Formats: sequence, C-alpha cells, structure tokens
Amino acid sequence: MKFIKIPSIVITRLSIYAKNLELLDQKGVEVVSSVRLADICGINPAQIRKDLAYFGQFGVRGVGYYVTELLFEIKKILGLDKEWRLGLVGVGNLGWALLRHAQLVDKGYTFVAAFDRKPKRIGLKIGDIEIAPLEDIGRMVKKKGIEIGVIAVKPRWAQNGADLLVRAGVCGILNFAPVQLQCPAHIFVENIDFSLKFDVLCYRLTSSKSRRHRIRSRLGG
Amino acid sequence: MKFIKIPSIVITRLSIYAKNLELLDQKGVEVVSSVRLADICGINPAQIRKDLAYFGQFGVRGVGYYVTELLFEIKKILGLDKEWRLGLVGVGNLGWALLRHAQLVDKGYTFVAAFDRKPKRIGLKIGDIEIAPLEDIGRMVKKKGIEIGVIAVKPRWAQNGADLLVRAGVCGILNFAPVQLQCPAHIFVENIDFSLKFDVLCYRLTSSKSRRHRIRSRLGG
Repeated sequence: MKFIKIPSIVITRLSIYAKNLELLDQKGVEVVSSVRLADICGINPAQIRKDLAYFGQFGVRGVGYYVTELLFEIKKILGLDKEWRLGLVGVGNLGWALLRHAQLVDKGYTFVAAFDRKPKRIGLKIGDIEIAPLEDIGRMVKKKGIEIGVIAVKPRWAQNGADLLVRAGVCGILNFAPVQLQCPAHIFVENIDFSLKFDVLCYRLTSSKSRRHRIRSRLGG
Repeated sequence: MKFIKIPSIVITRLSIYAKNLELLDQKGVEVVSSVRLADICGINPAQIRKDLAYFGQFGVRGVGYYVTELLFEIKKILGLDKEWRLGLVGVGNLGWALLRHAQLVDKGYTFVAAFDRKPKRIGLKIGDIEIAPLEDIGRMVKKKGIEIGVIAVKPRWAQNGADLLVRAGVCGILNFAPVQLQCPAHIFVENIDFSLKFDVLCYRLTSSKSRRHRIRSRLGG
C-alpha cells in the first residue's frame, strides 16, 4: 500500500466542505448535488469530486451527496470525530481570543491549559483554565493529555515555547508567531501567518487598479 | 492583452518569497540560487521559477536571483511598495492583537482608525488611534483615506460591519469572522479562518497515527 501525501490545500478544502455540510445538516437538508455544494463553498464541482476521490467513493451519480453521511466521513478523515486537547503558550490578546474562540470549541478543540512567562498573568482564570508558568509545561502536558501546543507569543519567544512543548511530548504545534520553528522531524507544525492574507488582498486590489488603469489608458480615458 | 487570474496560492507563495528575501537582504546576502531560496522557503525550486514566470523574467541562469532586485519586484507585484491604510471593526482581544501586530506595520499596513459597538470601549486609545463608534465609519473612511476594512467582530455582527464599510467606500475587506459575507462584486474580500489550519494539523496527526498503526499491524506489533 503506497502512502500518498495529500496536499494541504486539499485538506483545507475538505475542512471548508465540512463547515458548509454542517450548516446544511443543521438546516435539515438531506441531499446536496455536487454543483450546489460547490456553489456554496465557492469551489468548482470537478474540484470537489477530485478532492474526495483521494479518500474513496462518495455520493451517488444523479443524486448527489447524502449530507449527514458525507459530513461524518469527512470528519473521520480529518480526525474531527474526536476531541483534541490543546495547550496554549502565550496569553496575550491573541491568546485570549483563541481561548474564547467559539468555533474552535464547536469543532472539538479544547484548550485544557494555558502558559505564560509574565508573572502578573500567572493564576488568572479563563473559564476552567488557570494560567500557569512555562516551567509547568512538562508536567501539565502529561497530566492533562495535551496533544497539540498552540504558540501565540512574540516571535523572539516562539522557539523556546516550541522546545518546551516538544520536550513535554506534544505531537503537533500550531504556530502563530511569524518565525520558522526548528522542530524534530516527527513533530507536525502548521504556521498561521495572518499577514499572507493581507498580501493576497493587496495584490488583488493593486492588480485590479492597474488593470482598470490600463483599460482606461487604452480607451484614452 | 489577456488578463490571467493568478491563483491565490501563487500570491501567497510570492509573499513567502518576499519575507525570506527580506531576511536575506537584512543579512547582506546579494545573490541567492533558486535551490537555496527554495530550501529556505520550504518549496521546490521548479515551483519558484514557475510562480515568478507569471510576472516576467527574473534571475540569471547559472547565477541566481539578485536579492534586493527580486525583493523590490515582488513587493511591486504584491502592491507592498506603498502604505495601505486600514480601518478595524471590532476591538476585542483579536482586534487589539491586530492593532499591535508588529509584522503588519513592518509590511506597510497601517491601522488609522478602529471602531466598536460597545460604549465602554469608545474613546479608548491604542497608540495614535482612538476607538470610535460604528456610526463614524462612513465619515472616517473618507477623512482618513481608509482603503481596507478589517472585520474582527463576533460572527453575528460581521455582515453589518461589512455593509457599513462597503457603504463608506473601502475597496477591500479582510474578514476574521467565520461567516460568508455578502458583498458587491467590486469589493475584494479575503477570509481568514484560523480553524482551517487546526484541521490540517489534525489531519496530519490522524493520518500519521493510522499509518503507523497500519504498519505496526502488518508487522504484527
């Protein structure tokens, strides 16, 4: 059995399908055509079929997809059929926002601990979580069964946070700091860099402006 | 002249190239081979050449890319050769984090106004910005020359924020709320959904676990 590495963009789209199937499911929709699902997700129908084909055969020709069933299957593929236990490193503004992010909770992501280096934050409570010092990471990861570490500290502290999490035994890291972390090969790291999306928007604005400008110039306007 | 819509993923990679070229430039590196640049960016060299080919001819065969020159060109393509004026809607924890995000400032994104619906937040100052009520969006967008609106409110308030921004005349919106905004076709919208990256990480963890499990089963372990 050959192992194919599925591109991240396919996984991202699966996640978008799941989000929209969930909404359809909540509305009581039982069956959705690939054209309709594609339209809701803003993706073309051939792409959906191609993405799903990585994982097996879904949907019925001439009928479409059974919403609850497809949602169940995608969640299983993504690993969203279980609860994930997360530990947060860095409880600044972004950290607070993550701890209170309703959508993460809905998806099954549960923060079970939070750590900070600033003494004034230690002991503060957010819901059931009490902010602990960085020295507790090793102990707490084991005690609370933390699988994923989330890094929301300033860039210069990010590598230290990652080192502590790795030593404590997490399997994956989500990194919000705009730096490249050095981690052992068996640790999965995903970087979340807001500013890339800002750049995509600026490019769209810039290229549409210069296009309008070129068209206007040609028209002598 | 045919207008080709460049895929967002290409633009995202350009932005990653720019980030790393900036670091090389700061270190005084003058020339970088495509293999070396690819290695730093974690992307394969053929991809870099293909991405750049959308925009023209860059680099010298057998030499590589001139760092300062390529950085300059990519910034021009992305529209990062100018300052962008941003207005923030929603100054909760995420909003605060964005206003104080050093990397955005470095790239030329300047928040010039911030708005909130909660009376207790109105009048608070973050640096030079005083939080204003939503009713001021129309007036302030014109007065401050805001081109991009950033939405960091709860999902149920996001569409209202978008409507106010569009009516006020922004050209683009960055939306952090996990909802699909309805905007006129001439408005560019980019959605930033953290949770998608969480899902990608979970998929990687899940598939590697089940792969390890399969291998172990086959080995009788």
